[in-house]
Amino acid sequence: MKKIVTVSREFGSGGRELGKRLADALGLSYIDNEIVEAMSKETALDEKYLEDRLNSGILQYPVTFAHSFSRIPSASGSAMLIAQQHKIIRETAARTDCVIVGRGADAVLSDMRPFRIFVYADIPSKIARCKARSDNGESATDKDISREIKRIDKARRITHDLYSSYPWGDKAGYDLMVNTSRSEIKDIAPIIAEYARKFFEGGGR
Amino acid sequence: MKKIVTVSREFGSGGRELGKRLADALGLSYIDNEIVEAMSKETALDEKYLEDRLNSGILQYPVTFAHSFSRIPSASGSAMLIAQQHKIIRETAARTDCVIVGRGADAVLSDMRPFRIFVYADIPSKIARCKARSDNGESATDKDISREIKRIDKARRITHDLYSSYPWGDKAGYDLMVNTSRSEIKDIAPIIAEYARKFFEGGGR
Repeated sequence: MKKIVTVSREFGSGGRELGKRLADALGLSYIDNEIVEAMSKETALDEKYLEDRLNSGILQYPVTFAHSFSRIPSASGSAMLIAQQHKIIRETAARTDCVIVGRGADAVLSDMRPFRIFVYADIPSKIARCKARSDNGESATDKDISREIKRIDKARRITHDLYSSYPWGDKAGYDLMVNTSRSEIKDIAPIIAEYARKFFEGGGR
Repeated sequence: MKKIVTVSREFGSGGRELGKRLADALGLSYIDNEIVEAMSKETALDEKYLEDRLNSGILQYPVTFAHSFSRIPSASGSAMLIAQQHKIIRETAARTDCVIVGRGADAVLSDMRPFRIFVYADIPSKIARCKARSDNGESATDKDISREIKRIDKARRITHDLYSSYPWGDKAGYDLMVNTSRSEIKDIAPIIAEYARKFFEGGGR
C-alpha cells in the first residue's frame, strides 16, 4: 500500500512544521518546492511567480464578464496552473511515498487513500505563531496579522472547493483534525506519526 | 491540573468504546451511569426514564405555544433535567479526574480545560458498527439504521447547541477530531491516550 500523508492547514496553525516532522518520523519524502520546480520546468515560468499565482488561487483573478473582459484570461490561466499542479502532485505521489502540505493534495489524491490531516487553531494562537516565525512580526499589529490569516485561508478554501467533493476544513474530508491552539507541534508530531503508522497498517481498509 | 477528557461522538462512531479504553489507559474514572444514578437519587425519578428523557433532549417536547400549551411543561421539564445533569457533571468532574462520554460535557466543563475529543465516521462505517454491536441488527435495514443514526445525532446536536458557544461537531470546540471510518478503536485508543498525556503535561496552556 502506498503511504501518503496530506496535511491541510489553516495559515499559522503550524501545519508545515508538522508535515516536515511527520516526514522525518515516518521516513517519507517531504514534498514542497519540488512541485513548483517541476511546473517551472514544464512552463518556463518563474518559480516565484508560479508560487504567488498558486497561493492566491483564483481570488485575485475574478471572472467578471460584465465589467472587465481582460480579466478572463488571468482567471482561466490560474485554473490551468492549478490543474497542472494537480497533475504533478499525482505523478509525484505515484512515484514516491510522501508527505504533501497544502496544495489541495487531500482532494487531488483521494483515490490513493492518503492519510488526511487537517491542522487548525484559534486566532490568538495563530497570531502568536505568525509573530514567532516572522522577521517583521513586531511591526505588524495583531489586527493586520489576523486580516492576513483570513485572506490567505479564504484563498485556500475557495481554490480547494473548486475541485473537491467536500468543503475545505470539513471533518468529513479528513481522517484526523488537529487543534494546535494548546499543543506544541514537536510534542504531538511523533504521536500523530504513530497514528499514521496504524492507519497504513490497517491498509486504509 | 485536573485531567478531564470529554468524548463527544456521532452515534455509531465508536466513541463510547474509545472513552472506556482511554479511561483504562490513562487511569481515569469512566463516568457514565453515575450521572443518572445521582440524578435519580436527587429527583426520585426512575433511571431508565431519566436516560430516555435526556437522550431525546428537548426534541420530542417541542415548545409550540400556538397549538399545544400542554407540551410546555414537558419541554421546560426536559430543560430542567438537562440543567440538573450539568450540575452533576460539574460536581463529578470537580471531585475526580475522569473521562465523560457525551452529555454535553465538552461545553459544560469548558472552564476546566478538558481535553475535548470529537469522534465521527462516514455513514457506511457507522451502520456497520451499529450492526456489529446490535442483537437485532439483522432485522433492521441499512436505511432504518441510517435514519436512526440521524435522529439520535439530531437530538444530540440540538441539545448541545442550546448551551454551547460552538455548534456540536464544529472543530473550533474540540482539541482532536477523530474519523473512525478507517480505523479500529482498539488500535487508535493507546495513541490518543498518549496525545492526551502530552496535552495534560502542557498544562492546557
